[in-house]
Amino acid sequence: MKKVVTLGEIMLRLSTHTGERLSQTNKLTMHYGGAEANVSVALSRFGYDVYFISKVPNNPLGEAVERHLKSHGVYTDYLLKGGERLGTYYLESGVGERSAKVIYDRKYSSFSNLTLEELDLEGIFEGAALFHVSGITLALSPYLRKLTMLALQKAKAYGIQTSFDFNYRATLWSQKEASQAIKPLLPYIDICFCGELDAMYLLDIPTADASLTKTEKLEYYYRKIKEMYPNIRYMSSTFRTVQSASNHKLQGNLYVNGELYQSKEHHIDQIVDRVGGGDAFASGVLHGILLGTLPPEQIISFAIAASALKHTVHGDCNVFSVEEISQFVDHGSAKIMR
Amino acid sequence: MKKVVTLGEIMLRLSTHTGERLSQTNKLTMHYGGAEANVSVALSRFGYDVYFISKVPNNPLGEAVERHLKSHGVYTDYLLKGGERLGTYYLESGVGERSAKVIYDRKYSSFSNLTLEELDLEGIFEGAALFHVSGITLALSPYLRKLTMLALQKAKAYGIQTSFDFNYRATLWSQKEASQAIKPLLPYIDICFCGELDAMYLLDIPTADASLTKTEKLEYYYRKIKEMYPNIRYMSSTFRTVQSASNHKLQGNLYVNGELYQSKEHHIDQIVDRVGGGDAFASGVLHGILLGTLPPEQIISFAIAASALKHTVHGDCNVFSVEEISQFVDHGSAKIMR
Amino acid sequence: MKKVVTLGEIMLRLSTHTGERLSQTNKLTMHYGGAEANVSVALSRFGYDVYFISKVPNNPLGEAVERHLKSHGVYTDYLLKGGERLGTYYLESGVGERSAKVIYDRKYSSFSNLTLEELDLEGIFEGAALFHVSGITLALSPYLRKLTMLALQKAKAYGIQTSFDFNYRATLWSQKEASQAIKPLLPYIDICFCGELDAMYLLDIPTADASLTKTEKLEYYYRKIKEMYPNIRYMSSTFRTVQSASNHKLQGNLYVNGELYQSKEHHIDQIVDRVGGGDAFASGVLHGILLGTLPPEQIISFAIAASALKHTVHGDCNVFSVEEISQFVDHGSAKIMR
Amino acid sequence: MKKVVTLGEIMLRLSTHTGERLSQTNKLTMHYGGAEANVSVALSRFGYDVYFISKVPNNPLGEAVERHLKSHGVYTDYLLKGGERLGTYYLESGVGERSAKVIYDRKYSSFSNLTLEELDLEGIFEGAALFHVSGITLALSPYLRKLTMLALQKAKAYGIQTSFDFNYRATLWSQKEASQAIKPLLPYIDICFCGELDAMYLLDIPTADASLTKTEKLEYYYRKIKEMYPNIRYMSSTFRTVQSASNHKLQGNLYVNGELYQSKEHHIDQIVDRVGGGDAFASGVLHGILLGTLPPEQIISFAIAASALKHTVHGDCNVFSVEEISQFVDHGSAKIMR
Amino acid sequence: MKKVVTLGEIMLRLSTHTGERLSQTNKLTMHYGGAEANVSVALSRFGYDVYFISKVPNNPLGEAVERHLKSHGVYTDYLLKGGERLGTYYLESGVGERSAKVIYDRKYSSFSNLTLEELDLEGIFEGAALFHVSGITLALSPYLRKLTMLALQKAKAYGIQTSFDFNYRATLWSQKEASQAIKPLLPYIDICFCGELDAMYLLDIPTADASLTKTEKLEYYYRKIKEMYPNIRYMSSTFRTVQSASNHKLQGNLYVNGELYQSKEHHIDQIVDRVGGGDAFASGVLHGILLGTLPPEQIISFAIAASALKHTVHGDCNVFSVEEISQFVDHGSAKIMR
Amino acid sequence: MKKVVTLGEIMLRLSTHTGERLSQTNKLTMHYGGAEANVSVALSRFGYDVYFISKVPNNPLGEAVERHLKSHGVYTDYLLKGGERLGTYYLESGVGERSAKVIYDRKYSSFSNLTLEELDLEGIFEGAALFHVSGITLALSPYLRKLTMLALQKAKAYGIQTSFDFNYRATLWSQKEASQAIKPLLPYIDICFCGELDAMYLLDIPTADASLTKTEKLEYYYRKIKEMYPNIRYMSSTFRTVQSASNHKLQGNLYVNGELYQSKEHHIDQIVDRVGGGDAFASGVLHGILLGTLPPEQIISFAIAASALKHTVHGDCNVFSVEEISQFVDHGSAKIMR
Repeated sequence: MKKVVTLGEIMLRLSTHTGERLSQTNKLTMHYGGAEANVSVALSRFGYDVYFISKVPNNPLGEAVERHLKSHGVYTDYLLKGGERLGTYYLESGVGERSAKVIYDRKYSSFSNLTLEELDLEGIFEGAALFHVSGITLALSPYLRKLTMLALQKAKAYGIQTSFDFNYRATLWSQKEASQAIKPLLPYIDICFCGELDAMYLLDIPTADASLTKTEKLEYYYRKIKEMYPNIRYMSSTFRTVQSASNHKLQGNLYVNGELYQSKEHHIDQIVDRVGGGDAFASGVLHGILLGTLPPEQIISFAIAASALKHTVHGDCNVFSVEEISQFVDHGSAKIMR
Repeated sequence: MKKVVTLGEIMLRLSTHTGERLSQTNKLTMHYGGAEANVSVALSRFGYDVYFISKVPNNPLGEAVERHLKSHGVYTDYLLKGGERLGTYYLESGVGERSAKVIYDRKYSSFSNLTLEELDLEGIFEGAALFHVSGITLALSPYLRKLTMLALQKAKAYGIQTSFDFNYRATLWSQKEASQAIKPLLPYIDICFCGELDAMYLLDIPTADASLTKTEKLEYYYRKIKEMYPNIRYMSSTFRTVQSASNHKLQGNLYVNGELYQSKEHHIDQIVDRVGGGDAFASGVLHGILLGTLPPEQIISFAIAASALKHTVHGDCNVFSVEEISQFVDHGSAKIMR
Repeated sequence: MKKVVTLGEIMLRLSTHTGERLSQTNKLTMHYGGAEANVSVALSRFGYDVYFISKVPNNPLGEAVERHLKSHGVYTDYLLKGGERLGTYYLESGVGERSAKVIYDRKYSSFSNLTLEELDLEGIFEGAALFHVSGITLALSPYLRKLTMLALQKAKAYGIQTSFDFNYRATLWSQKEASQAIKPLLPYIDICFCGELDAMYLLDIPTADASLTKTEKLEYYYRKIKEMYPNIRYMSSTFRTVQSASNHKLQGNLYVNGELYQSKEHHIDQIVDRVGGGDAFASGVLHGILLGTLPPEQIISFAIAASALKHTVHGDCNVFSVEEISQFVDHGSAKIMR
Repeated sequence: MKKVVTLGEIMLRLSTHTGERLSQTNKLTMHYGGAEANVSVALSRFGYDVYFISKVPNNPLGEAVERHLKSHGVYTDYLLKGGERLGTYYLESGVGERSAKVIYDRKYSSFSNLTLEELDLEGIFEGAALFHVSGITLALSPYLRKLTMLALQKAKAYGIQTSFDFNYRATLWSQKEASQAIKPLLPYIDICFCGELDAMYLLDIPTADASLTKTEKLEYYYRKIKEMYPNIRYMSSTFRTVQSASNHKLQGNLYVNGELYQSKEHHIDQIVDRVGGGDAFASGVLHGILLGTLPPEQIISFAIAASALKHTVHGDCNVFSVEEISQFVDHGSAKIMR
Repeated sequence: MKKVVTLGEIMLRLSTHTGERLSQTNKLTMHYGGAEANVSVALSRFGYDVYFISKVPNNPLGEAVERHLKSHGVYTDYLLKGGERLGTYYLESGVGERSAKVIYDRKYSSFSNLTLEELDLEGIFEGAALFHVSGITLALSPYLRKLTMLALQKAKAYGIQTSFDFNYRATLWSQKEASQAIKPLLPYIDICFCGELDAMYLLDIPTADASLTKTEKLEYYYRKIKEMYPNIRYMSSTFRTVQSASNHKLQGNLYVNGELYQSKEHHIDQIVDRVGGGDAFASGVLHGILLGTLPPEQIISFAIAASALKHTVHGDCNVFSVEEISQFVDHGSAKIMR
Repeated sequence: MKKVVTLGEIMLRLSTHTGERLSQTNKLTMHYGGAEANVSVALSRFGYDVYFISKVPNNPLGEAVERHLKSHGVYTDYLLKGGERLGTYYLESGVGERSAKVIYDRKYSSFSNLTLEELDLEGIFEGAALFHVSGITLALSPYLRKLTMLALQKAKAYGIQTSFDFNYRATLWSQKEASQAIKPLLPYIDICFCGELDAMYLLDIPTADASLTKTEKLEYYYRKIKEMYPNIRYMSSTFRTVQSASNHKLQGNLYVNGELYQSKEHHIDQIVDRVGGGDAFASGVLHGILLGTLPPEQIISFAIAASALKHTVHGDCNVFSVEEISQFVDHGSAKIMR
């Protein structure tokens, strides 16, 4: 089993029940998640040995995070304990025309104060096949930007594949800050999850011709990024059409060797929980690439199917096996399996 | 902050959970609501000083009503305590093709026995900008019809705007009774919520030409009503297309100065709770009119948006602020706000 | 009230809540059901005196089955007590693109070991108007096949109408086994629930011409079956188009006197629970036939409406009365009834 | 199986969850019960053919009552449908030092307007072994007092044993009214559930000597009642010491042939639901008497055990079999049975 | 109605369900509370006009706090909106031998950064009868210590009674810090809630003679405090004997005019929620004093009864009226009130 | 960290909620547990590397078992997948005087058909410090008896300590069968959990003198067992006094070097879940012995505290750390920790 290393924050999510507003409810459901943590869980369920680098407080919530990760088989050797608090956010679940609403309470978290002295990067990367991180980690502190750069350089020194998901969050930092932090990292990246908006606003690529289709525009941006960072071998993203909070269309894009491969469009109705849908997609792409034998068409079909299934379960994590996702790709859905 | 006065019954609603029949469940959810009470809550959240005139029993259910109203900022100075019981109804929630079913148990309620001696109408109306009442109040007792007439006359004497929502309920009274009770009140009304059926069956207006569109028919009826009651400055209603109990289309109409203004059509899927949707709409229209500066196009957009959002939360009340509704009007829906 | 006799297994269903996977939840909802048991409940609610022949363990779960049946008015005189265990299955509820998943734990059940000595078939059939059984009963043991044959012969000897639902389940037996078991029974059947796949794979009828429409194909198969088993007076089935686990289209078919009658197509969105949908349909058809006066068009409309309503409630059973279903047929759906 | 007939009201109970106040909760649990209905359910579970005479509205709540009774095997042939509403009450559950609180909403119920024309008493009593009724029925209307008297006379005419439970409720009528209504009935009673307060305040028996023990006082009152109504063969009651709402001591008394028999004192801690505890006791006594072979010591032990077990389950009904109660009498409690 | 002013933090409490550990559950219940907020709610329910000075973030959680206070009638004119976050804590509920466990996440709260410029103390105190604050407010920041001192001086300048509850929390500050902060305030206090440990460790009073009874020791400490701060007219505390987390004994103490008055000892079993029990007690004492006519014996009986009842409901607040508490004092508990 | 090996069945427990009977509820809570599995979880939480040998079906329930164990850090390398079903049982929770009731549905389980060929005992035992098994494993099949013997012999060959818990279950086998199976194993056991009944009925030791105290009797039986099996170095058990299903007294016994050490008696009220209480105790004893440095008095105090805490949480497992248990031993309970 291949070893995978990830670095990121894991937070407590406190969600309202469907049809309840946060200011009026008295019941919350707890989930634990974060972009890199979710990828870790998914890849662990796909059969990889995943080591998640993070830091949580030394209290029952930190212990809960540990149990969550372990229950999915993720190795917690580098899940440090200490610091002030667990990053938290409240999710007022959306439904129908009403969008979900996130109220962040993540400042001063243990992870955002993680320091280099607490980690032994050498040991961590030994024998690994992949290192994955996202833009959220960068946004949390200048220190974490440095740490991420160092980790990427170390990973490349070990000959490990690297993966980066832009994951831009406007509430965490400005486009300018993000742009300045991300650009220096990109020369160390092999696999990159980014889309049209990232290209335009964070990488300052001139806007595509308005007469192009959505797909042609994406091809244009990917071509431009490839010119700037020829080291990036894969670029990937999703097209998401939001009809209502309960009803999306979702299509996957994978750009490799100058070609854009697209999955079929999934129609996702009666969405249960969309948080983590992007991470499930990224995990699917990473699995396809790590396998080494899958043609791009199948990688992107698998990844979008993983993401589609994620929308049908509560919680941030893709909790489906490779077999279940493949079966869904092959036979479609919605028959009772009995 | 402008003062608003309303008069009506507030009831206990006992609802089944989705997918349960009343005859087979053992769990009910409690909500408190009524046409005028719901308008009161919405207007209070919009920033008005709302006084709700009603009567509830002097027991824990009456106390619960009081807490409900107070928690939304509605003034309960004229919420009398006494009488036999709180009007109650059971709602077997609908879903998909199955419609909701209401089982009323509202007879002998404290409100239906309210008498004039218990109220000081002079003090109540002083300084008010609006008085709102609906046809349900009229239906509950002959005495309440008299009381409503008196209140409307008093309101006009004070120079207060008046608003009336037909809200015809066939289980409470016949069309003939309703017609006889409503017609004498209309000369005292400034703002009127009514639709095609009300015009045909309660105001005896000749049926519109069958070749007209739905919108043209409504214009015809509004024109006719205006001819009969030139004092009515605003008429308003919604077009609701019911595709299934979970899936509606909703459009708002506002007739003013001889023009009909229509909102865009909202597609409301995965409806959480439609009770109170009409009251949320009326509240939006009333707010628009009370503001005094909003063009009719914006009034009706705001009102239909308020109604659409109401369908996404449990309970009878619109629990969204002016800012939230305006943001929904401007930016549409269904993105996670984070 | 006419007497109806059924024979079959009733199981404990343990279902996850929507959006939960069986491997990750800690809460299950219990329902009791089975093909023939569900038909029994529905016909009892339609006003028949229904006797359900089965066997359950002599423990609290067996007692729960008894209470379930009694609460719907089904007679439990022939519900034997004893044996090792109650057949059980776990249902991971499907939603959106994710299909439901059944995990069976039904082996060694009390019913599967039922023996002839335990029953007095003579008494059971006296005065009955209908005997109903399904292919699931046949699949459970060779002994039950014999018992079913004996029961059918006895029923015919008493001049009772007989009804058989193919209900083929691939996890219980092979097509070959099913074919061998079912064919000898068909000469004793008056009313038969079967579809295209049954005709092709279990009755070995040559595949219909590919150029035919779905409806024409069904007519072809029904004609062929009628040629083989002229005793079968009614054949019936549904066309179900699965758009997602939450969203189906459903149409009913009834073949009688060489004519195929089809209901309108119902669009069933936001499905609550589809288990038992077929049994609700069969019950509707049987009621229509037993009434004796209903034209085929109305029988099939009633039956498909019963099935559609079943999809809107939790549990295996059709819990709607003849009046409620008829009202739904006549007036459609989705208005609040108040 | 012996036939038993009862007459009384069955109501909807809406209970708060433990630790919640009615004015602050939004969730209620539904139970159906009433003094005579609860006795009916218990005796049905003990193996009797019980016919419960009552009236409920012709709506889903009435249907729920019917299902409740049927699920316990009670015959509903004389459960009439019609009238205005189902009697309802709210129970704010007590815990620790806080007592439970009942808010009645039972006026205008279908049962309270039951009339003689609706019943065929002749058919009902034929073949019965016992007729049971309680003081609550008398309290509901003058008409029901007449009906009860007629029923008791009819029962005696048929040679049926009669049983009466005083069940005095101060919120329903005054002591004077109760006294006037009950006294004329007592000459027709064989088995009577009454205690010290009933004797003093409703039967006007002079207060017992203060120096007597609680038990001696009860003997004194029973002796006096026996002098007044020599027809009463059994008198029975419980001594209940309330330490807190969660913690009671309970002892049973049975007076027969001039002797008072007392059970051991049960210590009932962590009470789940005490509603129906008295009815469970009465059912146990009635079963003991109907058996005809049980010595008084065993009757009273069985009855008090039935009542003690009732306190450990939600709902009004004793849901334990004769075997379970006997086992509890013999082996005591609180070991895991495995 | 008398006006009362309080100053303090209100927090979000997230509690596990009974029998669940925080690290293993996925469901939390929300309550809002804090020492001074709880006193505010109780006094509002007792009929006072209570103004609660505090600060909460301008987000849905801040809005929820506002609704909570308003629903109990507390005036929120001085509930400021702004700052970073709402102080939060997790409560792992205790049961039996296992004690409850609090995990604080309250740093950086909006209230802890409240500044003087944000408040108009003059307006606030005008016409007030009482100002109440507790040691928790002092512990949150040096600035809040200054603000509290200023407020107390202002209150005295207005001739308002002042009340202070020591409420020492070891996790917030050291005994030394607390001692230094509290001592300078005491000369401005009329009513003081403190006990033996406060006297010994925060006021440095020499330890009482070991041979004294618990009550005698308390008298000794109160005498000493009175010598040091003759301005303090009332001192009050409870004796709590913890038998298990579910089972306490509770007795109230009130020292006035050189006399110690003690309530009877309540035995509180099956505790639902003990959070806020001390605040309910303090509210009862304050009400007794504010009434002005109640003898000390009755004040302390009322206060301890209020606290005992609080233990029987979920949430931080005393939700019982003066009438309910008085009835409980007079008639004891545990009978069903019907 | 020391390595521990255990062998046993893990089952699905389906529990009713408090106050509900299995025959009347429709909701169940899921837990996974078994004697040896529970010990494994507890020891893993205490810091040991625990390998649990068992077999579960290859379906979502088997996967759930795996997740359960992993979340507590138990190694699942020897958790085989396959076979027919997961052993299941229903627990009707007891409360007050009503005892819990177990309904087993465990026959034909995957574990009961485990065979030797599926295991590599050599690898398993290498480097281990302890092997633990209980009598339940022996009871499940003759084959498992052989396997257990072989495992014990292998363990002794490796010089590993062995531990055996009698855990006699009358529903699984007779005393005679148990006696014949257990006796031959005892010469291989170092640590033995057994009590008076085991000594009398399974080891045929003559009954102790009736005049002895409970403690003296236990000493007598332990002395006798030690004479028969001098290899057994530790014997341990609990004295449990059942006052009601919610209320027990519990004391621990540890016999070593000819001395009996007893813990203090815990009073456990308001019991949440007693299943697994014995396993928590055994885990505590094993931890004390494995530490190697703890005096017997402290071992038994720790073990009984672990068991007492287990009674306060839902589920089969001791979910408390060494630190939490030690703190409970030192400081007692029931204060809020904040």
